[in-house]
Amino acid sequence: MELALGEAEKAAAAGEVPVGAVIVSAEGEILAAAGNRPRAANDPTAHAELLAIREACAKLGSERLIDCDLYVTLEPCAMCAAAISFARVRRLYFGAYDPKGGGVEHGPRFFAQPTCHHAPEVIGGLNETRASELLKDFFAERR
Amino acid sequence: MELALGEAEKAAAAGEVPVGAVIVSAEGEILAAAGNRPRAANDPTAHAELLAIREACAKLGSERLIDCDLYVTLEPCAMCAAAISFARVRRLYFGAYDPKGGGVEHGPRFFAQPTCHHAPEVIGGLNETRASELLKDFFAERR
Repeated sequence: MELALGEAEKAAAAGEVPVGAVIVSAEGEILAAAGNRPRAANDPTAHAELLAIREACAKLGSERLIDCDLYVTLEPCAMCAAAISFARVRRLYFGAYDPKGGGVEHGPRFFAQPTCHHAPEVIGGLNETRASELLKDFFAERR
Repeated sequence: MELALGEAEKAAAAGEVPVGAVIVSAEGEILAAAGNRPRAANDPTAHAELLAIREACAKLGSERLIDCDLYVTLEPCAMCAAAISFARVRRLYFGAYDPKGGGVEHGPRFFAQPTCHHAPEVIGGLNETRASELLKDFFAERR
């Protein structure tokens, strides 16, 4: 999660909403680390989780991340939650809860839907304070 | 939608679940056309809609597809529905309904959630029969 927070800080420095994600294999190898970059990439799908999933899948040469865990500083949105499910991620660790845009504990609660065919184990609130503060500072500076 | 069905047929021929998507600008210009290719790309996020959104955004140099319409042969999943919302797509036309994995009229019903901040106008069931038959034929051949 420390590495994911570092990616979030780099995203903030680049003017992106500070969210970072890291994917770790069952053996503890870091397969991918990414920060949010929809603005720089002109890509609304360039959330940290999606970038990390695509990078890890490319590295493994597989569309599935069996036995891999994903760490992200913010509760994933529905887009990222669905991608996490499709990739068969084993465990999802997230930092801050996101009542406005979250798709795991809020809104669509993707993993609890009958249309969800793989749900990871979910551990929320990990390093929540630091993840939230990064976001608060970012938006405070922009107001 | 004809073009989207053509993309779905090409996807089937390549061994991918036959779904195709096309994005059209307000002026009627085709900005992107893509078929499903998670297997070939080793990328669980490589759904037709996501590929088309990324291609159209790259073409416009923008993370938003203001006044653009998206045609897709199957009801989008939650991942794609959320991406459609983030891209601010104006109208979503889809073919077959997807009770097992759909995220628009089924399961998460993404656009109806309080966490959804832009909902396109949705027109479902367009060329539904042909879109469904493509999918049925594809899965029948694999059983």
